This record gives sequence, C-alpha cells and structure tokens, in this order.
Amino acid sequence: MIEGMPYDLVTFTTDFGLDDSYVAICKAVLRRFAPHAQVLDVTHLVPPQDVRRGSLVLARAVPWCPPAVHLAVVDPGVGTARRAVAVRAGESVLVGPDNGLLPPAADRLGGAREAVALTEQSLFLQPVSATFQGRDVFSPTAGQVASGTPLTSFGEPLDPASLVRLPEPRPEAADGALATEVVDVDTYGNVCVAGTLDDLARAGLGDAAEVRVTTAGYRGDAVRARSYGGVPDGALLVYVDSNRSLELAVNGGSAARALSVRRGDAVTLTRP
Amino acid sequence: MIEGMPYDLVTFTTDFGLDDSYVAICKAVLRRFAPHAQVLDVTHLVPPQDVRRGSLVLARAVPWCPPAVHLAVVDPGVGTARRAVAVRAGESVLVGPDNGLLPPAADRLGGAREAVALTEQSLFLQPVSATFQGRDVFSPTAGQVASGTPLTSFGEPLDPASLVRLPEPRPEAADGALATEVVDVDTYGNVCVAGTLDDLARAGLGDAAEVRVTTAGYRGDAVRARSYGGVPDGALLVYVDSNRSLELAVNGGSAARALSVRRGDAVTLTRP
Amino acid sequence: MIEGMPYDLVTFTTDFGLDDSYVAICKAVLRRFAPHAQVLDVTHLVPPQDVRRGSLVLARAVPWCPPAVHLAVVDPGVGTARRAVAVRAGESVLVGPDNGLLPPAADRLGGAREAVALTEQSLFLQPVSATFQGRDVFSPTAGQVASGTPLTSFGEPLDPASLVRLPEPRPEAADGALATEVVDVDTYGNVCVAGTLDDLARAGLGDAAEVRVTTAGYRGDAVRARSYGGVPDGALLVYVDSNRSLELAVNGGSAARALSVRRGDAVTLTRP
Repeated sequence: MIEGMPYDLVTFTTDFGLDDSYVAICKAVLRRFAPHAQVLDVTHLVPPQDVRRGSLVLARAVPWCPPAVHLAVVDPGVGTARRAVAVRAGESVLVGPDNGLLPPAADRLGGAREAVALTEQSLFLQPVSATFQGRDVFSPTAGQVASGTPLTSFGEPLDPASLVRLPEPRPEAADGALATEVVDVDTYGNVCVAGTLDDLARAGLGDAAEVRVTTAGYRGDAVRARSYGGVPDGALLVYVDSNRSLELAVNGGSAARALSVRRGDAVTLTRP
Repeated sequence: MIEGMPYDLVTFTTDFGLDDSYVAICKAVLRRFAPHAQVLDVTHLVPPQDVRRGSLVLARAVPWCPPAVHLAVVDPGVGTARRAVAVRAGESVLVGPDNGLLPPAADRLGGAREAVALTEQSLFLQPVSATFQGRDVFSPTAGQVASGTPLTSFGEPLDPASLVRLPEPRPEAADGALATEVVDVDTYGNVCVAGTLDDLARAGLGDAAEVRVTTAGYRGDAVRARSYGGVPDGALLVYVDSNRSLELAVNGGSAARALSVRRGDAVTLTRP
Repeated sequence: MIEGMPYDLVTFTTDFGLDDSYVAICKAVLRRFAPHAQVLDVTHLVPPQDVRRGSLVLARAVPWCPPAVHLAVVDPGVGTARRAVAVRAGESVLVGPDNGLLPPAADRLGGAREAVALTEQSLFLQPVSATFQGRDVFSPTAGQVASGTPLTSFGEPLDPASLVRLPEPRPEAADGALATEVVDVDTYGNVCVAGTLDDLARAGLGDAAEVRVTTAGYRGDAVRARSYGGVPDGALLVYVDSNRSLELAVNGGSAARALSVRRGDAVTLTRP
C-alpha cells in the first residue's frame, strides 16, 4: 500500500461470468488508477442482469470487509439514462449503477451518507462505450476513489434517499404462521427465507421444536436445530444461518430440491 | 515489486477449468520464479482445447493491460513436436504453445517483434512432463521472463512470421449484404459477429436504421442502436460493441437463443 | 510480506462455490488476521460436501507450493462434535475439519508431525456460528498461524495418528491384470486411476505396448504413449500423468465419456 492512499482494497462483484475477458479488463483498468490496491472478488457469477441477486451477495460480503471501495456492476440499463453513482457508507465507498444494486450493502455498512452522480467525463475512459461502462466508468471511478480522488470530483452530489431501491420481501407473521419467501438458494441447496428468529417468535413459533413447511410442491416438518448434524441424514431442519436469517436445509442433501423451490417462491411455516 | 524486475504483472489464460488443482499448481510455480509478480487471471474456462476461443479472449484482454507477461496455455498438442514459444509484442511478452493461441494478442499489442522457441531445458522443471507443460515449461518461463531473464536465454530465435496462425473469419461485403459469422457468444447471449462499422458501410448498410438478420434458423430485423435500452424489452438490436465489433443482442434476453446460433455459424445482414 | 511473519502465502480450498459471498467473506476475515499474506485459491468448486474430492485436489496442489498455510474447508459435519484441527506437515500448516480432508496433503508434505484441536474460543470470531466455521474458526486460525501465533495457542495437542482418514483405493495386481478404480476425472475427461507404473509392472503389464481396458460399459484397447499426440485423433491411450499416476485419455476427446465411467467406478487393465 502506498502511504496516504485511502483504500488498499477494492472488492468486485459482477454478472460478467468467468469465461470472458470482461473481469480481467476491468481489473487491468483498476490497476492503472490504483496500482497499490488489492482486488477481492466477491463473485462474477451473479445471474446475468439479476440486480436483486447481486445486491444480496454484495450486502452479505461487505460487513466482513475492512474499509474498502466496493465496485459492483450488474447493469441491464447500461447506456440508458440510469444514473451511475458512488455512495459513501460507513468508512467505505460503493461504486456502480443506480438500479438497486448498492443500497442493501450501504445499509449493512451503516447507511449511505453521501452520494454523487458519476458525470465528470474527464475522469472516465474516453470514448465511454455504451455497453461496457464497467470498464469505462465504474472501474476508473473505483480506482481513483481508492487513490484518493474525493467523491465530489466525480459529479454533482445527490440525495442518498433518491437512490433506486428494489422492493424487499417482508415476512408476514400471523398467529401461528409465518408467510415468507425464498430469498436465496446456495451452493448446497440450502434455502434462505426472508425473516429472522424474531419473526418466527412473532408468529408464535419461537419455541416450536418442529415447524411445518408448506410450499407449492411440498408439505412436511422441519426440526429446529443448530446445524446439519443435529438431525438424521436426509432430514429437513430449520435454523438460524450465518447471516442470522432463517434457513431450511436437508442434512447431506438439497433442501431446494426437497421443497421444489427457487428464489422468490412462497414458503409458509406453521405448527405441525 | 522488486526494483529492476521488468514485469510485475503476469496474466494467465487457460482451459484448465476451475475445479482442479492445475491453475493453483502453475501459480505456485510462477511464484517460485517471480515472487514479486501479481497474477491477473483472464480466464481458465476456455472450452477444453479450444485454441480459437482462447486466442480471442486473450486478444481482447491484452490491450487494457500495462506491460506484462501474458501466460496462455490451451495446448491440445502438448507432448508433440509443436513448438513452445515466447513472443515479444509491444512492451509485453506472450508465453505459450505455438498453435495459434498467441498471434491475435500479439497483433493487438502492435505485432510480434521477437520470438524464441523454448528449448533450454535447464530453465524448466525437470523432468518435463509430457502432459502438463503449463507447469513444467510455460510457468517457469513466464516467471523467469517476469524476473528479467532475456528471451534469448530460453532457446533459438525464430521468425515471428513463422508462428502458427488460425484462419480468421473475414466478413464479405457485397451490395446490400454483409455475409459474416458468429465469432463469440458472451455470458449474456450477446452475439459478436466478424466485422466492424466499416464493413457494414461497405455493404451499403452504414445508414440503415434497421438491418435484416438471417441465420439458418431465424429471419428478422434488428434496430441499429447504441445500447440495449435503446430498443423495447425483448427486441433485437445491432450495435458496435466495446471491442468495436458488430454485435447482436436482445434487450433483457439472449440473442444467441433468439437467433439459434453458436460460434462459427453464418449470419447475413441485409436491408429489411 | 511483513518481516518475521512466518507465512506470506495462504492457499484456500473449499466447496463454497463461486456464486456466493462465502469465499470473499473468508478472505476478508483472513485479511484481518494476516494483512500481509497473499491468498492462492486452489479451488472452490469441490462438489458440495465431497471430502474425498477436496482431499485429492488439495494433496495434488501442496507439493508445488512454498511453505504456506493451507486452509481447506469441506465440512459436512460443521456444528457437530467433529474436531477442527491445525496440522503441521513439512514446513507448512494445514487448517480444516478433521474429517479426512487434510491427511493426504500432509502425507505429500512429508507427514503430519504436530496437530492441535482448535478449541481456544478467544482466537475465533464470536459468536461462532454453527454452520459457517470457515468464517468463524478456520479463517481466523489460518490468518493467525500466518501471522505467527504458535499452534499450541489454539488448543490441546492431539496425536497426528488420530486424525480421521478416508479409506484409499488400492489397485490389485494379479498375474496379467490390474484391478483398480477411477480416482478422478478432470476438465478434459481424462480418467485417472489408482496406481502407478510400478503397479502396472507388478501386474506383468509393464512392457505392454497396448493394454485392454474393461469397465462396466466398455471393453477396448489403449495404446501406451507419453502424451495425447502419440496416438491418432480419437484413440484411447494410457500414460503416466503429471502426478505419476496412471491415466486414460482419448486424444482430442473425453475418456470418461468413451469408457462410461465416473469417480469410484472399477477399471481393469489386462493384456489385449
């Protein structure tokens, strides 16, 4: 790290995939502007143009990072009038399109406290391409922020409250039932649903040793457990995951397959 | 970077995949010979033994990099008489098999201006395996080049014009028609075809607001636009991509699927 | 590297996948404890909970690395009574669950010569999650080992001979036949079987120019060759791979597909 450089870490989250040169090109551009910085890949396998999934993965990663520039590009609106932004949150700065990708991460960092629209053309690669602003706008911005260029140099300040937000799923707790939805399915087929232990308690299920799980294609009971090994092989369990969300899993198997669910599907938890 | 080391960056492009130890082994070997250098992965997901695809991805990445050693291994002929080479182009050095993988990248760097056959056994890991010369020949070479060993130490000079080249697709412009082929399909399903705006103009289509796109399984019209958002959701567009090639896309969808094409397939552009 | 830090390299092997934030979170945690260390990814695409495959990939990578901390997490028993361990082998330290993942790598490094159970809670992230100890236990341990914390600080010593080991396939050499099994199938479809050239010799096949290959769904002859190009396109060959194991391949094709085999399947080699 060069002394005095404000950020020696740039995290990088995209839907560019790993079989093209897009990621490497952006890293090469980053290196021009911030040769001192290390790049930490969050993921480049966000499903194409899936802003919601990108925002989730980014929001989960940022709390564990030291102060950093978080560069994120999932940008179906590239080349349109959607804003390009840099957002200060906590001691970090988020850089990306204003399409909902950044606010959940900003929230996890303590909330957006400054934001600017990226409009100062002299700071970008020229000519700015209409289809690859990850290379021409966002990577140069992230690199220059990491090297100490103040946010105000990149364009006009904007009200952080004006940043685009995607609607977030809210679990509904009624007497004896928590109606929620699948927020994420991970590599193992574990099914993360919207809601926490508090939500389960609000539904009167806080003390249940088992809960009934109902989806469009499944009805069965899940054992409350701390981890996979707390239930027999092949059994369904419900637990608080490492992000403090409710999660359903099958010990040694895939809950997503057992429950026939994917992201966005409805899940209801009740007493058996 | 250690002062005086000629290259502090080594890029790395292979078809090794990401689920084996091959990539890590090569990086560990690189580290022995160039502990000061950073490694920038271009991709390791070149389809197995697909030299053409490897050459394309590498050629797209190199123009954005600072002077670097570009290590590339897609090597179906490993263990045969195919030459192993190091090629100086611009201020960079390309290292890999002489099977067509490197010349397009060398072209993008200003053309090959020096080349050697890698034959000096004392500079490689011994015994050199017949099946993993990425580990035993190419990584040691890239590392030593990065640490300042002159190219001439690795073996006899060879004429850069003698390097193996793959035939490149050439679009044919006739009056009112551009006959070309699919050069690449990216993560999003965007279809890159051989040719530039100049080729479109040569075909008399430079000013067309729409062009008819004909493939073996599709006929329809694409709107000339600057980016995806310039057409309605689901509509086909044709534009100049971030590499200055002609590209077809569907806003919010996959042009490869819409056009039923894959790499190498014929595409004809005419007036509607 | 900070002077006096014992390890400036941490390798990282998991089944976390590349589309979630798990890998980045662990790297961020590692960075807290070992900001000086570089991370070398071995793979994060071990099939979910496939300890055997993880142990194989790790064991193949470690011999090529300089002294390092090898962090490996394939941990279906997370949150149960399975031990978490750090193991010194050669000049390196392996960190991971005690489920068979580490011993093959330790063997390749010269054998485990010290081991401790990771029980000293003050050295982990608190509260330790029941489902993500890669983040809370293993990454903090690997980082602190890399920064010089002695193994004995992490918990009670344990007998390295008590580490869990998975049964290893042993080829059986009888007169004229080597009965073995598929240990690995790589990106190219090359089929690695248990056994070496010595085993082939013990079966009386050491001098055979061809060997008959019999699987549940295939019977045919493989040419003994040094590399793929030593046989015609599409032909089956048997050779000593870059790990000194016996391997079957099809020149320009996939032996796994030709032989209809996957990991664990039986393969018998005899005279034609």
